[in-house]
Order: sequence, then structure tokens, then C-alpha cells
Amino acid sequence: MTDLPAEFALIARHFRPLAGPGSLDLTDDAAVLALPPDRELVIAADAMVAGVHLLPDDPADLVARKLLRTNLSDLAAMGAEPLAYLMTVSAPTTTPDAWFAAFAAGLAADQAEFGVHLLGGDTTSTPGPISLSLTILGTVLPGAAIRRAGATAGDALWVSGTIGDGALGLLAARGELADPTGYLADRYRLPRPRLELGRRLAGIATAGMDVSDGLVQDLGHICRASGVAAEIDADAVPLSPPARAAGMLERCLSGGDDYELLMAIPRGREAALQREAAASGIPVTRIGRFLAGAPRVTVRAADGTEMRLQRTGWDHFAR
Amino acid sequence: MTDLPAEFALIARHFRPLAGPGSLDLTDDAAVLALPPDRELVIAADAMVAGVHLLPDDPADLVARKLLRTNLSDLAAMGAEPLAYLMTVSAPTTTPDAWFAAFAAGLAADQAEFGVHLLGGDTTSTPGPISLSLTILGTVLPGAAIRRAGATAGDALWVSGTIGDGALGLLAARGELADPTGYLADRYRLPRPRLELGRRLAGIATAGMDVSDGLVQDLGHICRASGVAAEIDADAVPLSPPARAAGMLERCLSGGDDYELLMAIPRGREAALQREAAASGIPVTRIGRFLAGAPRVTVRAADGTEMRLQRTGWDHFAR
Repeated sequence: MTDLPAEFALIARHFRPLAGPGSLDLTDDAAVLALPPDRELVIAADAMVAGVHLLPDDPADLVARKLLRTNLSDLAAMGAEPLAYLMTVSAPTTTPDAWFAAFAAGLAADQAEFGVHLLGGDTTSTPGPISLSLTILGTVLPGAAIRRAGATAGDALWVSGTIGDGALGLLAARGELADPTGYLADRYRLPRPRLELGRRLAGIATAGMDVSDGLVQDLGHICRASGVAAEIDADAVPLSPPARAAGMLERCLSGGDDYELLMAIPRGREAALQREAAASGIPVTRIGRFLAGAPRVTVRAADGTEMRLQRTGWDHFAR
Repeated sequence: MTDLPAEFALIARHFRPLAGPGSLDLTDDAAVLALPPDRELVIAADAMVAGVHLLPDDPADLVARKLLRTNLSDLAAMGAEPLAYLMTVSAPTTTPDAWFAAFAAGLAADQAEFGVHLLGGDTTSTPGPISLSLTILGTVLPGAAIRRAGATAGDALWVSGTIGDGALGLLAARGELADPTGYLADRYRLPRPRLELGRRLAGIATAGMDVSDGLVQDLGHICRASGVAAEIDADAVPLSPPARAAGMLERCLSGGDDYELLMAIPRGREAALQREAAASGIPVTRIGRFLAGAPRVTVRAADGTEMRLQRTGWDHFAR
């Protein structure tokens, strides 16, 4: 009656090395930690399910890194500093130990890159596909979090990086789109959370979020939260050379998995944004504007006519 | 391009009414909140999967309440005050709206009972069984959290409430055990987190945890964390009248889902424990003792001989 059950041996072998301050070595009922003084807690949780968010042959290390990075992107959107995370892993009992080892190795790599550590969580079996959840903790100075509410008519609409690589990368990873350099599939599998840019946006952006479900749909969230309309100039949306070559603009505007920052910037602060973006090494592009009016997103082609999109973004419960 | 996608309409309809301070109405990338000053954060996450933790016909409101209560039990074990929670729900696209409505109603009932609210989370589809995760946040005075480490040879072993009702309740819910009053099935489906008792244990218990995976196995965790051995007097373990009538002692000692508190209490503090337990309205029972020696749990029958159990508790990855 003293052997560690297999479940706890698995946790000890693969997850305990990821644990850090406050985790109590993952051997207690909960983690206990003091937050940095004079900071607010920023906290978000995301789920990832094999067959929905993951392809069957996605390498486990990249699955883990994507899980962590999509959550870090939520912190980037709020301008928050990452602190630590909790995670639940539900996997079939037949999942090989090597899968857990690779999964943990992916987390270890990204923990080093982003300065976070594991605080706690749960490991369970499932009769279904691998189901993962991650809760990310970060901090901001009181009142400094960037919200979706706050955009004002007259603000310019800016975006970081390039749009559409993730959506096209999904097609590439499925073998449905040529991707000779592997650039697109890599962008799908390994998001780049814009933490450095995000933490520089305090006092510059009036509103912001990360683009995860599709540019047009996500911009709709800012419009609803801020009570404004928005226009996107389709030909201003920054595309990577492989995305431009693919010639699938509508897919780029409505696909998900970009993990770039969408920002409302008053005209007088655009130069400041460009300075901070340059300092963070991430290009930013003005792609449109916020307008007075009921929440609505209009996409304009180069000739000024309105583009009608078949879909605007990802919807888990579309019927 | 202005309609709310079905996924977000579902969140707005069922989950937004559960949201409270810091949640930003569930319309942002993350929640933002200031912790009470001079408190430490206590945080834990659990997963629940249909077919593993849930029976197919478990009512959705009870599923929700069990998910929340198992996490609250982790806070109780640490002596923490509940604050709020995040949740991820992965459900088949065919899940009826009524399921979500009942699930949310269960959470609403328990939010009122335990003084917590929803902070954030994620709702996704899944091709598999319903998979849930919940991250609970609570607070304690600095240094006051009760840990699994800290039990000392000579401490008495105490437990709250009765043991085995959850495990027998699972049998009853499956129709494998008579349960004329429904008492056992109710105990399986609706844990009673011992928050009031837990918060009174500071300065009394040297170590503690909640019994979720089976008394004997969970006691092994305290032994390993504290570097001590332990003995349970089997006939001292408190059983409810229905559990006693069932005559399945070994199942009671090794089954899970008790959500009672297991406590190491120095001899000089046993009276204090009994006073605090009486004040919290929860009976407590001395069931054994901690001993010097390598971490090991011995279960003694009434005649002093060692009982050999077939299994000691629940193991998700037992092969």
C-alpha cells in the first residue's frame, strides 16, 4: 500500500519537473502563491480538443506549446505579464508514455522562452479524444489592462504581424494547400504570442484583443464591446508572401489561429504605436478605422465596394 | 456580419448570468481582478469527463454542481476562502440547449450557496464525450494554508463526516446496490465541501487533504509528503447507516468521491478540533495515528491484524 499509483507516477515523471514556485511540487490539493504587490491578476482559460483544435498527427510537443501559447496570447491582448499556469490533461489510458514525454518537453521549452511555470492541475483518463485545458495567470498594473471596450469613432484600426497564415497553415497541414517551405503549417502549429508588443500598448491603444477566431468576427467583438462600427480595407490587410501567393483573401480574413493583436489607436498616438512596435520587433499595419454607428464590420475592396464574406470566423456551435 | 455566432450566443444566454466582478461580462480575452490585500492566492484545477467521472444520465445541474464542489473541496482542504472560478466546457455540437440551461442552473444554485462567481473560460465543441474543467480561486492568510506535508509521528488521524458513501453511491446510481432512500446516490452526485471546517483548522491541523480518490490511497499522499507512516483502525472509520448496512467495508476504505477532510492532529489539539467541528456542524472521528517510519499505510482490523486490500483507491492510468 505504498506504491505510487500509475497516475501519480506519470505526474511525477513528466509534470513535476515543470512545476515552480507556489506549485508545492504538485503534491498538494492546490497551489498557494503571493501575487506581486500592487498588481492586478489577469486570468484566462482555454480548452483544446483533438479532432477540433488538433490534427491527429500533430506532434505532442507542438500541441503543448500551442496550448500554452494561445493562452499567452490572451495575456498579450490585455497587456499583461505572464506568471504561471494550471493545466488539465484528459487522455486515453492507451496514450503512450512517449506522448506525455514529448508533451512535457514542449512545455519545458516554452516555459524557458516565456518565463512561466506549472502551478497545478489534473490528469485523468478519457474514453474519447485527448482533451486539454489551460488556465493562464498574469499580472498588470492596476487599471492598465487593455480591454475590448474603449474603441472610439475616429480611432484607427491596426493589426500586428500578418493575417491568414494560421488558417492557410491548417489547410497546408492537412495537405490541402501547397506549402513548400513549411512556413504556413508552422504558423498554424506554433502561435507567436505578442507579449512584448502587448505590454507596450498601455496608454496607446484604447481597445484591443487577439485575433484567434478570424479577423472579421473578432473585430465584431470589439465593435460590440465598444459600441462602434468598423471598416477594414481589404487590400491593406498584411499578408505574408506565402499567403499572398495562395490568393485566398477571404479565407485569410475569416480564418482563425492568427494570434496577432488587433488594436484601436487614436490618430494622435499612431506614431507612438509604430515606435513601440519597432522596439518590440513586430511590424504593425493600419487596416481600417472605427466609425460611429451600430456595431457592424464592413470589409471594403480596393474600389471601395463592400465585400460579402461567406463566413466571418470560427463558430464551435454553428448549426 | 453583426450577428453573434451561435457559440457566443450560447455563452451570453447561459454563462453570462453567472459572471461576477472581474469577469468583464465574459466579453474580453481574460478576467482582471484585484485580490484582497494581505492574502495569498490558492488555486486548483480539476477535469471531469463523461464516461469516467460522470454517468450518461447524470442530470446536468448535478454534473455542474459536482464539478464546482470537487474543486471547492480542494480549497476546504487547504483552509482557504472561495473567491471565483473559470471553467471550460467541451460538448458535442448536438448537445441540446436544455442541457446547457440545466448545467448553468446548477452552477447558479451553488454560486449562491458558496459565494463564488464565474470569471471566465472557454466553450468548444468535441467529437467525444462532454469534457469539463474548472479552475477554482480562493485566498488564505499568508502562511495559513494547510498542507499535506507537516504530519508528525504521534499525531492522531482524524476524518470528517462519513467514509464510503460516495463509492457506494456510484454503485447505487448504476443500479448495482439497493438504495431505497436515495441517500447513497445523492452523496455520490453532490459532494459537500467542508469549507467551514477547513477554515477553522489553521493552528490545529499539522497536515490535511480532502479524500477524493479513496481513504487509504489519499492517506498515502500525506505519508509521502510528511515522511511518516500511518495506521487506520478499520472499525473506527465512520460509516453512515446505509453504508454500514451494505457491509462493504473494503469498498468504503478504497472507493473515491468522499470529499471529507483527512487531518493530522497533535494530541494536545484534539479537544480544539472537536470544538471547531461542533461549531461547524460537521462530526469528526479519530480513525488512527501517524507513526515514525517509511511512508506506509496499514489498515488494522478490530483484532489488530493487518487487512490486505485488493485496491487502495482510484487510479486513472492503472494498467
